[in-house]
Amino acid sequence: MTLMLPFTKMVDLANGTIPGGQDIQVRHLADLKGLFADSAAESALLPENPVIYRVYLGAHQPEVVGQLSFSTTVIYPGKVGEEYFFTKGHYHAKGDRAELYFCLRGEGILLLQTREGEVNVQHMTPGAAALVPPYWGHRTINTGQDEFAFFACYPSDAGYDYAAIAEKGFASLIVERDGKTEMIPNPSWL
Amino acid sequence: MTLMLPFTKMVDLANGTIPGGQDIQVRHLADLKGLFADSAAESALLPENPVIYRVYLGAHQPEVVGQLSFSTTVIYPGKVGEEYFFTKGHYHAKGDRAELYFCLRGEGILLLQTREGEVNVQHMTPGAAALVPPYWGHRTINTGQDEFAFFACYPSDAGYDYAAIAEKGFASLIVERDGKTEMIPNPSWL
Repeated sequence: MTLMLPFTKMVDLANGTIPGGQDIQVRHLADLKGLFADSAAESALLPENPVIYRVYLGAHQPEVVGQLSFSTTVIYPGKVGEEYFFTKGHYHAKGDRAELYFCLRGEGILLLQTREGEVNVQHMTPGAAALVPPYWGHRTINTGQDEFAFFACYPSDAGYDYAAIAEKGFASLIVERDGKTEMIPNPSWL
Repeated sequence: MTLMLPFTKMVDLANGTIPGGQDIQVRHLADLKGLFADSAAESALLPENPVIYRVYLGAHQPEVVGQLSFSTTVIYPGKVGEEYFFTKGHYHAKGDRAELYFCLRGEGILLLQTREGEVNVQHMTPGAAALVPPYWGHRTINTGQDEFAFFACYPSDAGYDYAAIAEKGFASLIVERDGKTEMIPNPSWL
């Protein structure tokens, strides 16, 4: 049996990036088109097409049971209308796969929901280790003034289901109102 | 279906502990008796019985495929003879389960080996994310002057096989000689 060799990737703790990682995925506003609740605000910002977040892939291991992959994500500060910048959000294709988030920098919210629309919120500040149990869809949101960066570890065979979120969104929105972070019902939630 | 609820545990980034974790395992020298190569030095230190390391269990999730557990480990600085303080070391009972280590503080070595005695070394400094691929036994070693602390994430069903290490040890020792860290063959390796 040929074994895989151990390896190390350095996470830059100052900014949450992985300079020597396997890949960097850059998500501009256009990549998230239709996900923000305020479509007029989204359209107005599209010409500028800001970078919403970057994913730094540390290791994408073979997609089999027992393997672990890891990445970091940096979400930039900003809003579309009153809604904070966020990641697309997804369920795992294999719904029973968990995920672990570990906050490195800034502050944000891990928004989770079941396919039935039950919502859960975890507050992320540096040092917070948040567990996404099986079957919970999840999205991360930068509610701060600075970059929000976190480390993620997940079973390599978890896979992604983005479609359910793209179609229906989340049942709740995380917005800034009167300078405060609030969770409000998503008016478009079916 | 009743789903598990998401949750967050705070890791104290200053010292690597998880104050609100599920459990703390304290490993004194007596718990590691027979693992250090210099048995005379080990015996001489046994009356003092220093704490070698503590494991802070953040979450031990159900032992089924897809679940993830996490912990932190703090290894104190020190030596038994010329050998640095280390963790017991283990293989996973389910050999094909990986593990991820993320260094938070101090400096150390992740020593890995296969059951056939092939050895691999990963150097850990803050921000280092080291992947333990399937089938590699692993031990962590504090080669620094300060506490060495790291975060670990692993499949909850990985399990532990401590016996193989307890019987045969590792094929290599990590020692301090003339003020320098060196890897030398283990004279007791069969």
